[in-house]
Amino acid sequence: MRVAIEKGVASEEEFGLVCRRRPVQRLKHFGWGREGEGLSREEEAILLARYGERFGVDRFDERSPPPLAAIELREPRLAPPAALQTICSTDRYERVAHTHGKSFPDTVGGLLGDYHQAPDVVAYPRHEADVATVLDWAATAGALVVPFGGGSSVVGGIDPAVDEGRFNAAVTLDLRNLNRVKEVDRTSRAARIEAGIFGPALEAALKPHGLTLRHFPQSFEYSTLGGWIATRSGGHFATLATHIDDFVESLRLVSPRGAIETRRLPGSGAGPSPDRLFIGSEGILGVITEAWMRLQDRPRFRAGAAVRFPDFYAAARAVRAIAQAALYPSNCRILDAAEAYHTAAGDGTHAVMVLAFESADHPLEPWLRRALECCADHGGIADADGSDGGAAGRWRNAFIRMPYARERVVPLAIIADTFETAITWDCFEALHDRVKAATESAIREATGRGGLVTCRLTHVYPDGPAPYFSFHALGRHGDLIEQWRQIKVAASDALIAAGGTITHHHAVGRDHRPWYDRERPPLFAAGLAAVKRELDPHGILNPGVLIGPAPRI
Amino acid sequence: MRVAIEKGVASEEEFGLVCRRRPVQRLKHFGWGREGEGLSREEEAILLARYGERFGVDRFDERSPPPLAAIELREPRLAPPAALQTICSTDRYERVAHTHGKSFPDTVGGLLGDYHQAPDVVAYPRHEADVATVLDWAATAGALVVPFGGGSSVVGGIDPAVDEGRFNAAVTLDLRNLNRVKEVDRTSRAARIEAGIFGPALEAALKPHGLTLRHFPQSFEYSTLGGWIATRSGGHFATLATHIDDFVESLRLVSPRGAIETRRLPGSGAGPSPDRLFIGSEGILGVITEAWMRLQDRPRFRAGAAVRFPDFYAAARAVRAIAQAALYPSNCRILDAAEAYHTAAGDGTHAVMVLAFESADHPLEPWLRRALECCADHGGIADADGSDGGAAGRWRNAFIRMPYARERVVPLAIIADTFETAITWDCFEALHDRVKAATESAIREATGRGGLVTCRLTHVYPDGPAPYFSFHALGRHGDLIEQWRQIKVAASDALIAAGGTITHHHAVGRDHRPWYDRERPPLFAAGLAAVKRELDPHGILNPGVLIGPAPRI
Repeated sequence: MRVAIEKGVASEEEFGLVCRRRPVQRLKHFGWGREGEGLSREEEAILLARYGERFGVDRFDERSPPPLAAIELREPRLAPPAALQTICSTDRYERVAHTHGKSFPDTVGGLLGDYHQAPDVVAYPRHEADVATVLDWAATAGALVVPFGGGSSVVGGIDPAVDEGRFNAAVTLDLRNLNRVKEVDRTSRAARIEAGIFGPALEAALKPHGLTLRHFPQSFEYSTLGGWIATRSGGHFATLATHIDDFVESLRLVSPRGAIETRRLPGSGAGPSPDRLFIGSEGILGVITEAWMRLQDRPRFRAGAAVRFPDFYAAARAVRAIAQAALYPSNCRILDAAEAYHTAAGDGTHAVMVLAFESADHPLEPWLRRALECCADHGGIADADGSDGGAAGRWRNAFIRMPYARERVVPLAIIADTFETAITWDCFEALHDRVKAATESAIREATGRGGLVTCRLTHVYPDGPAPYFSFHALGRHGDLIEQWRQIKVAASDALIAAGGTITHHHAVGRDHRPWYDRERPPLFAAGLAAVKRELDPHGILNPGVLIGPAPRI
Repeated sequence: MRVAIEKGVASEEEFGLVCRRRPVQRLKHFGWGREGEGLSREEEAILLARYGERFGVDRFDERSPPPLAAIELREPRLAPPAALQTICSTDRYERVAHTHGKSFPDTVGGLLGDYHQAPDVVAYPRHEADVATVLDWAATAGALVVPFGGGSSVVGGIDPAVDEGRFNAAVTLDLRNLNRVKEVDRTSRAARIEAGIFGPALEAALKPHGLTLRHFPQSFEYSTLGGWIATRSGGHFATLATHIDDFVESLRLVSPRGAIETRRLPGSGAGPSPDRLFIGSEGILGVITEAWMRLQDRPRFRAGAAVRFPDFYAAARAVRAIAQAALYPSNCRILDAAEAYHTAAGDGTHAVMVLAFESADHPLEPWLRRALECCADHGGIADADGSDGGAAGRWRNAFIRMPYARERVVPLAIIADTFETAITWDCFEALHDRVKAATESAIREATGRGGLVTCRLTHVYPDGPAPYFSFHALGRHGDLIEQWRQIKVAASDALIAAGGTITHHHAVGRDHRPWYDRERPPLFAAGLAAVKRELDPHGILNPGVLIGPAPRI
């Protein structure tokens, strides 16, 4: 049941293996990754067997997505001017491949052949000046512009949805050609990197310098630096630099009013941080074109263990002890018993902690030893754990393959999705209980039968964890989006009522707007809208995201 | 020569001792701390002997500040309405004590009896509702409002300067009565604390819970939580949580448009961080009234050493190695040879590192051992160092007493000041050389004789240090502010040209505006101004700070 989509933990070596296996094909217009990639027959068999067992069925009602040629597409509502024709496309594949992100409703939309929101034009700027030219043209033409990295949004962050009262057409701005590492500063361990670079290319370019960004969201292979920054992506490190935010030394973006470049500094106290206003701005204030990123030396020392706990809350208390002890493990994730079972990291009788330290500088035994004492204080028993064979390795392998599952299970009417939050420790157990119960109950109401709701903690802070929920239900073709919506609404309502954030690292996009609007202070939204009016006077950048009229989910 | 003013390192025990020694007197209207406090005769003798030796003089031209009763004050330009009379004062002492901050020109202003910018009214809100009432009244009356914590600004951050074309009068809003710790969450290690609380009262209230904020700027005794947040104060920790920013879990402020409260969360990826927009907003967007702060357990383990280096750059390379090794010492400061000598931490022949680790959880020998290896790699030799007797202890004692020196040396026409920055490692040596040379040369030009410019590194990041400069010159009464201005301008110009930030943790205020305006992106300033128009439509909050027409320094 390896279907959760998460930004989380893995190593570049793992991703490297995946990359080397694939021929260079174009990205799929439906599903994850490139054409020809997907789950192996064996992976698929295991997945379907577990779902069959869970739902008590021995076959699924399978539908197929339409082939590219059969998809109905409206004629483009505008044509690029002569000067932009070499970098613009109105090709069928391009428009289809840029219509949806990778969320559950996106995948259902693809399955149904619903491409009514296809962008009219896809532009591929070759350099920053092209970005400015496209923005100018779009403003003149009355078109909205959607900045596009890898397209891996699971929250409706790249939908080219045209409100016809406000816009004439939609242009998607795909940044993949801004893909160079332009400067490396070995002394400060930093590099100036263009925003459209994908994860593997970024790491490959840094490797000869002995450096690594060590930011490995689950989408690593098919997402970009600019996308990570725009969405406050959560990465490799379970503690300290949990989000990309802390790795941004400075950035550069192009707004409709002009370029903005922040000063490259290790730290500053000069007014509110300009970087922090643009990190997480999800494409509504400007198009991030490059950033100076803080890097790491490549780790040479590792120490880790898998630790079994009698229950999830005991494991969470150990996580809290480790986080409050300031030991800073790179990995300190816990899986509840059901999640451990379904990711092959446990037998379903106990919760599992995947604990790891890494360093480029020093051996880590004292750190690991003390962390294991914290575990023992809460009933944790450490397993021997090799680099691949143990629970940690099995879980990591499952994690990397998860994104490929969605395109296989949605055609079977399986509703599988994830959502994540963060909460202070005092409210954690109450939030967990409330959200799990609300989600389970919504699954039963929406689908008429029980499903599965599991939880892990992906990132942790001294003052609270980031719980990550997965749910699985058997839906009905024809009702999938409405059934998903019922579950999503119930889960999100519970999560906000229990004090959490609507997203720890998946971003807000359009799908999370109703709850984001309750979470953020109204006058902060007013301030953000004022900044947007200043930088994007015609409101062409990613309308519906973060502020302004909210699309209905 | 213990005259530098810094936000930096000390322990609450040290500050506690200072607090217990004093009777509870009102704050001085001229100088640091409370009436009756100041340098001891012995401290003063050492200080003046060193200055005499440095400048080759055996006596100084001493002037005295006017007594309170002799200060010329204009009549208040407005009177508080009946409903606010119980919380407002137009008393001479109150107006005088709220006219100046603690910068060099502030002190010269006090020496000269220049109180033409005295606020017309000082308001002491008892609770948040009073803050809103004062803001409403001020907007109606055409008065500007200066939020005031401890008044320890060294950058013109609390000047009630009335541009008479725009405002009729000035109201200073002193928050000292919002001074309660309202809630403690032991599980998450966090507390809800009112913004007007001073450092010692805050720590005293947390102590029974076994908790500490561990934020010890040099101004700790006479500055407030709200002031620290508004100015991105730099504190105790030389690595990781160098600024107050990271300790803010959520905050609440009152803008002229209404209250804003951010959600209490350990982490989030939901849009640009609302907290980060208000942290560092220096009173121009709203008045911070309370915050949930992340706390620490009280440390039980410590390990540290003083390390001698042949020169400052060798010491800096060791600091870089330690920072990039992710060892996270709580203290990792280095003093150049001259600064070590003048703070009694060295004999003037070598640079000194003050290195310390602390933990509430575990012994720190492995951490210290590895850090000392990094030092040895760069020629560092560790001294035995007791808790009080060694170089580290002597330096810390000097550090805590420094703020009391200014009121003694300015009347002698000694120009002594500090400024700080941050810079990536690749540019550090060039910045240091350029800034030191420019400052030395400006001292010679402005005063006709040589002075002293020293440097230390106070905080450090993997990608660069925060250099902190002190300078000392012998000026002339009558020309002090102009002489200081010449030196400040030359130093700041050099610092910005060399790639640094105009402030790592002293804030921008009014004095740093010319360089801040060059440092921050113009469109970010436009965005910030748009937020201000939204939250403070009449522009009454702290005009001249961060944005808008810049006062001349």
